[in-house]
Amino acid sequence: MRMVDIIEKKKAGGKLSKEEISFFVKGLVDGSIPDYQASSFLMSVVFRSMDDEETSYLTEAMMNSGDVIDLSSIPGIKLDKHSTGGVGDKTSLSLMPLVASFGLKVAKMSGRGLGHTGGTLDKMESIPGTNVYLSEDDFKRQVRDIGIAIVGQTAEIDPADKKLYALRDVTGTVESIPLIASSIMSKKLASGSDAILLDVKYGRGAFMKDVPSARHLAKTMIAIGRRLGRAVRAIVSGMEEPLGRAVGNSLEVIEAVETLKGRGPSDFVELVETAGGILLTQGKVAHDEEEGKLLIRKAIADGSGFKKLEQLIASEGGDISYLENTDKFQKAKFAYEIKATEDGFVHGIDSLSIGHAAMLLGAGRSRAEDRIDFAAGIYLMKKAGDQVAKGDVLAVAYSDKSDVQPALEEIGGAYCVEKEKPSLPPLIREYIRQ
Amino acid sequence: MRMVDIIEKKKAGGKLSKEEISFFVKGLVDGSIPDYQASSFLMSVVFRSMDDEETSYLTEAMMNSGDVIDLSSIPGIKLDKHSTGGVGDKTSLSLMPLVASFGLKVAKMSGRGLGHTGGTLDKMESIPGTNVYLSEDDFKRQVRDIGIAIVGQTAEIDPADKKLYALRDVTGTVESIPLIASSIMSKKLASGSDAILLDVKYGRGAFMKDVPSARHLAKTMIAIGRRLGRAVRAIVSGMEEPLGRAVGNSLEVIEAVETLKGRGPSDFVELVETAGGILLTQGKVAHDEEEGKLLIRKAIADGSGFKKLEQLIASEGGDISYLENTDKFQKAKFAYEIKATEDGFVHGIDSLSIGHAAMLLGAGRSRAEDRIDFAAGIYLMKKAGDQVAKGDVLAVAYSDKSDVQPALEEIGGAYCVEKEKPSLPPLIREYIRQ
Repeated sequence: MRMVDIIEKKKAGGKLSKEEISFFVKGLVDGSIPDYQASSFLMSVVFRSMDDEETSYLTEAMMNSGDVIDLSSIPGIKLDKHSTGGVGDKTSLSLMPLVASFGLKVAKMSGRGLGHTGGTLDKMESIPGTNVYLSEDDFKRQVRDIGIAIVGQTAEIDPADKKLYALRDVTGTVESIPLIASSIMSKKLASGSDAILLDVKYGRGAFMKDVPSARHLAKTMIAIGRRLGRAVRAIVSGMEEPLGRAVGNSLEVIEAVETLKGRGPSDFVELVETAGGILLTQGKVAHDEEEGKLLIRKAIADGSGFKKLEQLIASEGGDISYLENTDKFQKAKFAYEIKATEDGFVHGIDSLSIGHAAMLLGAGRSRAEDRIDFAAGIYLMKKAGDQVAKGDVLAVAYSDKSDVQPALEEIGGAYCVEKEKPSLPPLIREYIRQ
Repeated sequence: MRMVDIIEKKKAGGKLSKEEISFFVKGLVDGSIPDYQASSFLMSVVFRSMDDEETSYLTEAMMNSGDVIDLSSIPGIKLDKHSTGGVGDKTSLSLMPLVASFGLKVAKMSGRGLGHTGGTLDKMESIPGTNVYLSEDDFKRQVRDIGIAIVGQTAEIDPADKKLYALRDVTGTVESIPLIASSIMSKKLASGSDAILLDVKYGRGAFMKDVPSARHLAKTMIAIGRRLGRAVRAIVSGMEEPLGRAVGNSLEVIEAVETLKGRGPSDFVELVETAGGILLTQGKVAHDEEEGKLLIRKAIADGSGFKKLEQLIASEGGDISYLENTDKFQKAKFAYEIKATEDGFVHGIDSLSIGHAAMLLGAGRSRAEDRIDFAAGIYLMKKAGDQVAKGDVLAVAYSDKSDVQPALEEIGGAYCVEKEKPSLPPLIREYIRQ
């Protein structure tokens, strides 16, 4: 088999066989296929796409390029969820403890954030003492004992994805449904859960620019799951503004805690309740999503979700007194108010700008080796739909830096304020079961 | 400027600026743009193509990536011709001496052949003593003195093309009109001639599979010439069988000599007369192509073309007694007859198979360092349109090798013999002036 023939076949619009796709993935990882062949192949996939069968073969080959976690020794249904990425997205920290509080098992491997704000691991590490690096044995033991673990990768997961991701980023081949779907699903499948809920974001601040393409991506990933024997469902949700009000690591932990105490911002609460309702259905705790949603509300009201979060953090070495009393979190040196310059209604808040401003304030990394300032970030006082008067505080920016004018301007510019009252679409646009 | 943005722009179907195309070519040659970005860019060009303006910018940037020969010190009109490649194509050896015999200047840099049979330089070196490597000064002096030089590259011509050509070959990005056109034209323009005639081949044995795509390529190259100030014309000719009867280095020299002595095979003579008529018009020796064709016939009949070939070879050190008496050429050790296995008519002779068989016999290189056996090759006794009876000799294969069964079978298999008389299209399908 020769890579150039595989490229020619895809270029001509042909359908690749399992063997051809495996040959590509193996050669990519062992270096026998040079990057210049991989990248022209990827570009031919951008133009010719892949059908669900090819995409499943690609996902499977990528999954098998590294270690695959075996959770079969842990009793019960193992659940995972994945968001395609958004600003202010602290969903895992609220949602997964709620789900685990019903006896379902959450064995979640998470990543670091690059750009914008930190990832889930960074947010957890903003709680003093937390160590997200467990051995594979300790990881499984924690899932068995308390029903939940959220950790950094314990093994060499999916090296094919690391290589492809880096290559796609610099060769103009990021935007391709089969390439995005296989990248997400190969990592999720390698972490070993039985059932997965995907939150596919759409909008200006997301990979997918509109609902139809988000739906297409969701359906592709569900089809991969079906072919590879995992129960996958998806919601399509908007990223026309950041999720919740807090953007930044300890700010988002506080918001996640507040949500588990019944005081969360409405859009974030809606997402947690809906996603939780689905996960409880997937885990066969609830008969349907409506019942699941009610159960989630109950687990917020009776504090069992919060208790599970405390168990999770304590088990990973974190000081839970910070969760009991979030005032203990270190504050940023400076707080800057961003004010409305005109009267009107907020129509949207550009997530990319807010994410970028948060990074400038110190909340995210521009390079992998950058240190994160956990206290830095942005708190959105006004959200889409809110009426504002000139001089009202739109948002507060937190930072240890004093030279933050560009970040403040970016936050102000992110707010779209118009005279008329907006008609806003619902946050969760679709729920896709198959 | 970032290469990834240029890739994204072309991927989206955008039109690239002169600056963007120059940035790509410069970065490719100096190594600042990695091969994996170049190859995904090339694939996006395969799918999105380039218009004539972009293709001209690409051609110009490639031309300027290395040395550009200045022939302005040589008086008179400098002519060049280029064929997109065919098996048995010895046109330069007959045509260019004929043209030069009218006082027009031929300053031709030629390449080595890889695969199939040798290139023009290899064919010339089959005449003992010939040395095709002249200094740039000697090259120009010879053009000034005798009006013709056909040599190997005297300078670093078009390094961008060398790099792109090698990359395209292994990344599935060969078939693209703008990439093929810029590759051919950048080299031709760098060698400094005023007027160029292109022979664009079509058919199974050629880059271009049909007349419309050959015409498209021809028109693209003519447009490049117009934008960059050179007079370019083109013919579109068939490669449904090898050109002439001889395939192999000294065999082709002998056929070129025979043609200049008025005894050439009819298809090759037709091509030489037609192309010669056009070149004499481009060189303002003839008022029109018909007159030019008559003048070429005259230069064959009166021996002035042959005399010019002798001057060319003598000036480059070759022993012209071989041209006076072609029986002097060393013969291959073995001659093998390939016979017809059925009665019928020859409908075509697959050029790729004949070329490959000739290489197996020793006439070509499979690797750049292979030595060529100048006497090896194939003589086609039967050509398309000929009637054959079972047992007739279709072709004779010449080689010093005794284990040539695969080559002989390939030659037999190349002949398409059918019961009915074929209706053959004319060899030269189109003449394109603009």
